[in-house]
Formats: sequence, structure tokens, C-alpha cells
Amino acid sequence: MKFATYTSKGSTYYGAVTDDGMIALNDACPQWPTLFDAVQADGLNTLERAAQELPVSHSVFEYDMVLPNAQRILCVGVNFPDRNAEYKDGSDQPKYMSLFPRFASGFTGHNRPLIRPPESSQLDYEGEVAVVIGKAGRRISQEDAYDHIAALTLCNEGTIRDWVRHAKFNVTQGKNWDRSGSIGPWLVPFTDASQIDDARIITRVNGEIRQDDVLSRMMHPIRREIEYISTFMTLRPGDIIVTGTPTGSGARLDPPQYLKPGDVVEIEVNGIGTLRNTIEDEAV
Amino acid sequence: MKFATYTSKGSTYYGAVTDDGMIALNDACPQWPTLFDAVQADGLNTLERAAQELPVSHSVFEYDMVLPNAQRILCVGVNFPDRNAEYKDGSDQPKYMSLFPRFASGFTGHNRPLIRPPESSQLDYEGEVAVVIGKAGRRISQEDAYDHIAALTLCNEGTIRDWVRHAKFNVTQGKNWDRSGSIGPWLVPFTDASQIDDARIITRVNGEIRQDDVLSRMMHPIRREIEYISTFMTLRPGDIIVTGTPTGSGARLDPPQYLKPGDVVEIEVNGIGTLRNTIEDEAV
Repeated sequence: MKFATYTSKGSTYYGAVTDDGMIALNDACPQWPTLFDAVQADGLNTLERAAQELPVSHSVFEYDMVLPNAQRILCVGVNFPDRNAEYKDGSDQPKYMSLFPRFASGFTGHNRPLIRPPESSQLDYEGEVAVVIGKAGRRISQEDAYDHIAALTLCNEGTIRDWVRHAKFNVTQGKNWDRSGSIGPWLVPFTDASQIDDARIITRVNGEIRQDDVLSRMMHPIRREIEYISTFMTLRPGDIIVTGTPTGSGARLDPPQYLKPGDVVEIEVNGIGTLRNTIEDEAV
Repeated sequence: MKFATYTSKGSTYYGAVTDDGMIALNDACPQWPTLFDAVQADGLNTLERAAQELPVSHSVFEYDMVLPNAQRILCVGVNFPDRNAEYKDGSDQPKYMSLFPRFASGFTGHNRPLIRPPESSQLDYEGEVAVVIGKAGRRISQEDAYDHIAALTLCNEGTIRDWVRHAKFNVTQGKNWDRSGSIGPWLVPFTDASQIDDARIITRVNGEIRQDDVLSRMMHPIRREIEYISTFMTLRPGDIIVTGTPTGSGARLDPPQYLKPGDVVEIEVNGIGTLRNTIEDEAV
């Protein structure tokens, strides 16, 4: 079963995704006003049971960012071997991972437009798998790491490329433009290591494959990400780790090919789904 | 009037600070469960009026991080001229500011210990003024910037110095250790430009002055910080901008002098107050 946050006729709900539409779960689970609250309470099993008793409530709806009130989103940078080489700085594969936070305000939902601002023509895609933490922990071992994952989802870690290098350190201002990326379409409960270990990620722009890799090639696998991050901060249910993008973003093509209005970007991962977004110029 | 979040006998409150203790405001303002909610609702004036009618409720209490449920905290790096020189990389003064987010979990409150983890002996202080946004805005002009500030507070932007340089980009993992920094003691409502423009910041370790500078020397003044950040993200009430630290952190001394258990760090700014913290080794 898959769970999403969505809007229908101006109201926001969360629910279970079916072929015929959404089964709203807010009324059945009033203890959790949002999907984020359900994740924080380790409630995905309860949602699944509730959904089995209920009919489809909304056949017309729009997906929202899957956890719009997520409080801590950490992204892993430069996590596939060819991406380290892309920087052409002669550096060895790094011992530690690059990490940067993004605020939830930087993300929209499935099928919604990524917003290209007037300040830049360099809106770029990055297809990634995101893991949602379900169990708190500090200094989690790699062996135990998967026990702390509640669900998987997808991320287009949309980036304003020229703003990433504005400053001496840190990519913050290229990574936090309002609605420049997306997370969704839904949460897939994590039940089996093969959901991660056998995952292949493909990013298409207007149908053309731009990124195509397997998560098993990550320099810092997801088990290690959880171990490392939880060394310095206590991971909590509802935290999101965006696990890293393969080579092939638009900035790395020759010449670079950035996203423009009319483009369609799709991130597809077997077993999770396809996250699709269009591009729109910001109305200023 | 000053407002704080605090704990007394195991319960958490927010209230007005007086010489005789705290005037709890939760019961008088039940529409705002936390001080953060009051700030989000532009409610500091209402809190002030409520406090004028009430007696002191708690004379024994401990300060908490002033807005423990703040969702977006953005820190400005390398923002005093001598600090850019400290990096000895021959770079000119940067055109744009360095920015990095910190999660609220990285901060404790006034008079509480900063936590030194077993993974590092390089816990360092950085004294800073923090501004709390009170009015939402996007692409705010420098001229209008101060209209968007609700309150001022202080930050010890405590850093695990060796982890700041773990990765190729980004300082995230050196800046987000649980309770490695502090924000407080309280919010001082922002009413007049002179509160910022005439502010002098002094950091003392065990009484010895380590940082001593004036905010008017910032390379990117607070008006510019608000203009720049609001270019890429809509600022919202309750957002915190930690505005930058002067030269003189422990890492820059020769030899470096990091914080150790028993040390006392005080950040003092005229018109705001003094934020004091001790140091404790983490109990693992």
C-alpha cells in the first residue's frame, strides 16, 4: 500500500493510493492530522488497516509534497563515483559524505510544476531515492540501519545551479528555492532490504534518459548514511534523507541543458514509482 | 519586555522575563501553545499586554532554547572582514554570503551545558546576534528589511570544528551536533534600528575576551542578509537568521583553544543581554 498527501477541491488530505483514487484517512485517524504525524507515531501499519475498511473518497485530486511539514531533510551530495570525477578537481573518493539540509518549502508534489525563478536560467534536475526515518536513534550501526527506515519515496532534488557556487562554502542558496524540487508521489512502506539494494534509478527529460544507475554503486550506501548522520544528530521519525543522485544532471552535459517551461522530468525507481514534474516560470 | 521558553518542575512554559522570575503566559494565551506560535501570529505585543496584568509565576526555572520548535534556522558564515582573511586562501571579500542551515536540535538554552561528544575534542564557540522574522516576505528590499524582524536574540553557534571539513562541500556535519550550540536567553522585541546598528558583540571564555566587534562592520549587513535570503525563499514568521560571528573563535588562536568541561562561555550584546553556557562531556 502507498500513502500520499493530496489536495482536492481546496482541502488537503492524506490517504492511501489506489488505481481508482484516494482513500482519505484523516477522519479514520483523527489522532494524526497529517501524514507526517502518522509517520512520527510509527502509524503506517495502522493506516493500512484503516484503508482496508474504507472506500475511495477522491477520484479528482492533486498530489502535494508527500510530507509537507517535514522538519529535517538532509541531502547527500556527490555520492556516485562518476559524480566525484565530474568535479575534475583530482580529488580521491571522499572518506566522508557531503551533506546539506533543504527546507520542505523547497519542494512541491508529483505532477506539479517546478518553479524556475527570474533570477536564473539554470534550473536543473537530480533524481534520487529518499528514505523516511521511522524509529529514533543515535549512533546507529550499519547493521541496524534499515530497522530505522519507515518508508521510501522519490526526490527530484531540483537545483538552481549558478546559485550553488555563490559562496565560499555551502550550496544552501542553490538548493532552497521555493518549490524548485519535488518529493513524492507517495510513501512506500519499507519492508525488505531488496527495495533499496536492488533499486535502479532512471531520470528522463522529455522521455530521454539522462540518469541511469543502481543504488548499489553508491560510494556511501544508505546504511552508511544512517550510521554517519546519526553520529552527530539523533535521527527522529519523519526525518528524510535524500540519498544522492547519479551522474547525468543537465549541468554536466556538453553543452549544459537546463530545464525550461514545457519540459517534463520523470524519476523512476522500480518498486517505488515514477515522480513526474513539469517546469513553469515563476509568476512575479 | 523580554520573552523566553523555560522549564519549571518538569513542565515547559513560555513567558515574560522579570527580575523576580517568569510570568507564564501559556494560560493567558491558549491560542499559542508555544512562543514560536506567538511569533508566527505576530503576537509579541499581545504577550506584552497580557504580562502586564499577571504576577510572577515561576521563580525557579531553567531556560530552554528560546524557540525550540523553530523550523528554519539559517546561519551566515564568514561575515566579518578579518574572518575572510582567516581562511588564508587569498580570496577577495566574497560578493555573496555563505549560508548554512542548522536544525533546532543543535541548540540548547541559556545556562545549560553545550555538549562535547566523544568523537571530537574540537567544540568551539561563535558568538552571534540572531534575528527572528516576524512578517513574511519574498524579495524583500534592504530598505524594508527591518520591517520583517520581530525580535532579536543571541546565539552561541557552537561548532565541532574538525567535522566542518569532513566533506568536499558544506559544513553541515560540524554544525548540527545535538545541543552543541545555544540560542537565547530570550527574545527582545525589535523596535528600533539602533538595536542592531549600534550593537557590539563580545564573547568571553572564562572571563577572557575572545571576540569583540560591532555589527556595523559586517560585510553583509542584516538588511542585506534579509534581502538575499528572501530572493530564493519566502521568509516566514519564526524563521531565524544567525547573522555571523566576528574573528576570534578558538580554532583561530595559536595554538587553537577548544572548549572543555568546566569552561564558561558568555556572549554579550548591549541591549539584548548575555547568553551564558557551560560545557559538558556527553554521557554515552
